[in-house]
Amino acid sequence: MSFEFTVQERDGASGARLGLMRTPHGEVETPVFCPVGTQATVKTLTPREVAEAGASMVLANTYHLFLRPGAETVARLGGLHRFMGWEHPILTDSGGFQVFSLENLRRVSDEGVLFRSHIDGSEHFLTPEKAIETEELLGADIIMAFDECSPPLDREQAERAMRRTHQWAERCLAAHRRKDQALFGIVQGGGYRDLREESAYTLSEMPFPGYAIGGLSVGEPKEVMWAMVEATVPCLPASRPHYLMGVGAPEDLFEGVSRGIDIFDSVLPTRLARNGAVFTRLGRINLRNAQYAEDPAPIDEHCCCYTCQHFSRAYLRHLLQAGEVLGLVLNTIHNVSYLVGLMREIRAAIAEGRFTALRDEFLAQYTPVDETSRLRSAELYRRRRQT
Amino acid sequence: MSFEFTVQERDGASGARLGLMRTPHGEVETPVFCPVGTQATVKTLTPREVAEAGASMVLANTYHLFLRPGAETVARLGGLHRFMGWEHPILTDSGGFQVFSLENLRRVSDEGVLFRSHIDGSEHFLTPEKAIETEELLGADIIMAFDECSPPLDREQAERAMRRTHQWAERCLAAHRRKDQALFGIVQGGGYRDLREESAYTLSEMPFPGYAIGGLSVGEPKEVMWAMVEATVPCLPASRPHYLMGVGAPEDLFEGVSRGIDIFDSVLPTRLARNGAVFTRLGRINLRNAQYAEDPAPIDEHCCCYTCQHFSRAYLRHLLQAGEVLGLVLNTIHNVSYLVGLMREIRAAIAEGRFTALRDEFLAQYTPVDETSRLRSAELYRRRRQT
Repeated sequence: MSFEFTVQERDGASGARLGLMRTPHGEVETPVFCPVGTQATVKTLTPREVAEAGASMVLANTYHLFLRPGAETVARLGGLHRFMGWEHPILTDSGGFQVFSLENLRRVSDEGVLFRSHIDGSEHFLTPEKAIETEELLGADIIMAFDECSPPLDREQAERAMRRTHQWAERCLAAHRRKDQALFGIVQGGGYRDLREESAYTLSEMPFPGYAIGGLSVGEPKEVMWAMVEATVPCLPASRPHYLMGVGAPEDLFEGVSRGIDIFDSVLPTRLARNGAVFTRLGRINLRNAQYAEDPAPIDEHCCCYTCQHFSRAYLRHLLQAGEVLGLVLNTIHNVSYLVGLMREIRAAIAEGRFTALRDEFLAQYTPVDETSRLRSAELYRRRRQT
Repeated sequence: MSFEFTVQERDGASGARLGLMRTPHGEVETPVFCPVGTQATVKTLTPREVAEAGASMVLANTYHLFLRPGAETVARLGGLHRFMGWEHPILTDSGGFQVFSLENLRRVSDEGVLFRSHIDGSEHFLTPEKAIETEELLGADIIMAFDECSPPLDREQAERAMRRTHQWAERCLAAHRRKDQALFGIVQGGGYRDLREESAYTLSEMPFPGYAIGGLSVGEPKEVMWAMVEATVPCLPASRPHYLMGVGAPEDLFEGVSRGIDIFDSVLPTRLARNGAVFTRLGRINLRNAQYAEDPAPIDEHCCCYTCQHFSRAYLRHLLQAGEVLGLVLNTIHNVSYLVGLMREIRAAIAEGRFTALRDEFLAQYTPVDETSRLRSAELYRRRRQT
């Protein structure tokens, strides 16, 4: 069985669309938010908890699995679905983003990328062919082409990376053998409208069943990100799914869906959960805050997740203060349920022709983290990972 | 509804017995193994996972909850059952063991114990009355008297601690108000048969609905522990449940049941799981071992737990190597299921008159950790906690 995507509804007042992806491991209704299982586990959750949170597809990272336990090992153990006990659709990235972003980069050439393992310092050479071979061994339903990411605001570098990404896209298509996997192309072009348009048009000429927008949400201002999305989406085939990589804040899901995005992924809900930050209808709260020490209410009165149905903010805060793993688990269940549930509401609203009303109502209520704090914490996190 | 215990069957060939405890939060079939939820959480597991592992009663630690979040806080949040989302029976210890064992002890007098918090160094004075007040605020179904533990092989100290434990037992009974909680007495007497007998007889004169054997499994040789159990049990009322505190190795469950023990608790299954050690029918294995890197088998072919039904040893090893929380969760699910399931088999065997056959068969197959390694790792763990 091969990959299919159909657009079922288009919103009259925005670019939002309702769609259905068919994959060998089941259907995915779009727009969809995918939790990230970097090392073949959505951090802290059992696959059952991930499914109960409502997730229909998860992402796994080729870079991490390539290094540990190794793609051959995963293949010998029956492939990624069986290995991690997740029988629903999986998407793997190509490793490109990690190779460039983890600052383990040694040398880039047209042939490929020499990088150093963050685990043991060993050197590896990743090429488009090697990335596809690795993704075929892992066996996800949707796999991504190997691309070169560049800093968003260096035009010369962005243009060079984009051209190389296009050559690599051709090589990925040529190398791809497994008919049961859908290979998606990735648009690059940094923070430049014309490059984004060129990239989208160029890749549209290639027979990809889906397209991602890469190299965004990497520290650039949000208005730059949305300008690039607006430049890109109209240049992509409307009949193919559009995937905005690495985006997952609640307000951004609405903004992305409004601009015709069908697939989102982000480590945000899982990472925030481990820091004690959880989503509510009004914005994020941090459960470590002393004000919750005796708060008998659940995180969110209206949430149906396991955490909100059984535990108070006071208990969750106690678990965090006491350093208990269960605190991380319960917060993660909530945050994943929240984003996946928000997407379910968005799909229902599109189906009923009231998407922009839901969006405006949500955005009026919800206070996002301000831009300065957002960039600061992203930077802090990036530095911490390098040490 | 008050506490009841009935002995339903007695094994002809050993001291094993089958019983039923009735508590305000449900029935507990005995012999029973209780997982430990030190800080109001069985480490890494959701209450649902604890129940699915088959546990009918869990233990929580008064010492830890007294210090954080505080017993009044737990009471204001509706008591321990509601706080931790566990609607089945709970047993709390009195804090005595931790006060003496965590080496935070400052001064012991007949009045009580002055100790230092391991969290912030603050000083607290715990008396029998204060311990009972705290346990009443927490609201467990079974609560323990406040006792003095002593090193097992110093006779003078053991005798002094035993006498004080008896005085404190009287004071606990006098202080206890809540009719919906069963207050158990604790036998002391170190490693001395005559002291153990004296302690058991003395406490038997007091109206406790259940009796624990304390001050064992604290580093003494196993033959000393079993000699003390053999000295104690016959001196306790046969109609009351007998609880051997802090014991949980598979071979010890059989040995304890053979000697008339009805209740066991131990951090062993949860602590071992976090170190990568898991139980099989043949003994413990450590999943960090390289030999499991590509092992497609579950931990135990015959185990019905969620972990064994869904995951290979290779995946569990990957999670441990990659530092993923899910590895701790899945190992803990297995280890708790294993011990609770073993106890279920033991109860079925007693009911069918084949307990000693099951015991002999199990002990012939199962290789326990040797005594030297056992004492060494207990000592290492103790030291690590002090730093």
